[in-house]
Amino acid sequence: MHQKSQQVCFDGTIALYTHTSDRCHCDMNFSIYLPPQAQSGPVPVLYFLSGLTCDETNFTTKSGVQQFAAQHGLAIVAPDTSPRGTAVPDEAEAWDFGSGAGFYVDATQTPWNQHYNMYSYITQELPDLIAAHFPVNAHRQGIFGHSMGGHGALVCALRNPDKFHSVSAFAPIVAPSQCPWGEKAFTHYLGHDRATWKAYDATDLIQQSTFPTQILIDQGQADNFLTNQLKPELFEAACQRAGQDIDLRYRDGYDHSYYFIASFIAAHIHHHATILNT
Amino acid sequence: MHQKSQQVCFDGTIALYTHTSDRCHCDMNFSIYLPPQAQSGPVPVLYFLSGLTCDETNFTTKSGVQQFAAQHGLAIVAPDTSPRGTAVPDEAEAWDFGSGAGFYVDATQTPWNQHYNMYSYITQELPDLIAAHFPVNAHRQGIFGHSMGGHGALVCALRNPDKFHSVSAFAPIVAPSQCPWGEKAFTHYLGHDRATWKAYDATDLIQQSTFPTQILIDQGQADNFLTNQLKPELFEAACQRAGQDIDLRYRDGYDHSYYFIASFIAAHIHHHATILNT
Repeated sequence: MHQKSQQVCFDGTIALYTHTSDRCHCDMNFSIYLPPQAQSGPVPVLYFLSGLTCDETNFTTKSGVQQFAAQHGLAIVAPDTSPRGTAVPDEAEAWDFGSGAGFYVDATQTPWNQHYNMYSYITQELPDLIAAHFPVNAHRQGIFGHSMGGHGALVCALRNPDKFHSVSAFAPIVAPSQCPWGEKAFTHYLGHDRATWKAYDATDLIQQSTFPTQILIDQGQADNFLTNQLKPELFEAACQRAGQDIDLRYRDGYDHSYYFIASFIAAHIHHHATILNT
Repeated sequence: MHQKSQQVCFDGTIALYTHTSDRCHCDMNFSIYLPPQAQSGPVPVLYFLSGLTCDETNFTTKSGVQQFAAQHGLAIVAPDTSPRGTAVPDEAEAWDFGSGAGFYVDATQTPWNQHYNMYSYITQELPDLIAAHFPVNAHRQGIFGHSMGGHGALVCALRNPDKFHSVSAFAPIVAPSQCPWGEKAFTHYLGHDRATWKAYDATDLIQQSTFPTQILIDQGQADNFLTNQLKPELFEAACQRAGQDIDLRYRDGYDHSYYFIASFIAAHIHHHATILNT
């Protein structure tokens, strides 16, 4: 593991790292913010999964999360959104598939299955790496994300409630099996048998097993992707059928951007801190 | 004037505009954040001048200013840092001169003097444009900036205390006549006669006339440019000789980046709001 940079922010530190991933068979990048509280002992850790086209820097530079992570004493880990590199298959012309669009699945189809294993990278390899190298309490982990990363956060949490005790999302893809982005990605990564998609679809998963804590979702009503790709009403209805506690907040006038995320990041950090600090 | 985008953030709006500048003889870009309070009447307006290599988007996307501008009801205008375009002279290989490095002067030397008139653009043309098109109170204006833009903010305020009633800076170049960045830029833009540089040097200006309100400066102690380029101690000493109220805060561990700015932006907005809202 190699530290590329480290900078002080809100009396904690933001660092960028690269490491060789066993699961993705390539170098992977992540950022980690350690709040000032980490100087005196392990702190809870919150994973943020970013959306299409993003890497580990977008959330880190644009969300304003550090202010609130410092207030509540949470470490924040933001990984890249896919494997990358000259050895990694990609469709260079597609921004919604391949590089920058790993969709947080373990691919089963060639040529994607050698590198595109973001699900086990996020749920196993990366948390193990973080716990081994940083002052975090691996028994107090949460996860959240944006858009494709909101999908990833929901799936990782719903399938691993022992590992992730809190979950939230900004404008998540909640039903990838029922939207163009998800159908394209899952067809390539997982194949045509839609039965295999259910393991990566939050709206399917919630009907099999609920999550122990409330799920918080913010969704802008001026989001261009709301009706065609995101469809939060599908997940909300599934939660209601399953008896899952969910707080889905529609935000008038807000779009899909980091300005939307920044506007509501405080409430998300508070949500996670309330669960992880108790 | 053409609006390129508008997005909701902290219940206000961030918009990017381009307009044809009479002073710079080219199209110029700026961002403006209007807080929610602007929906019911004019609000004070605060200009932020960015540093070398930046444009109108860096501060807008990375500083987290909107949270605090919304709290205090201030509009924030962030202009570009120089004229740009194929018709504008530049030294493409230099990042500290030409495009992205206007140094907030009115150039007197050819070929720079036709376009590089950032001083009168910032102090006259842009405030007039903003006052004509947006719900701001032009009698309640402040100015702040970072690095080269901290220099610009100090110079614009010290020379125009009737226009700008509050001023602050992050890691400013306080004595451009006495540092390599300033000497290079002023030689090109203003010529070899150093007497003409005094009108654009805050450390010279403060000895001629003090500013009516306290000057707030934050400076990281891990800033790579601190000793060679920034030299805040020169300005602090000049302020003390002149009887100028200054609060220069050294910040242990902080560098020159937007993570430093984000960490202390709340205090700067509070400083300006206290002056502009009373």
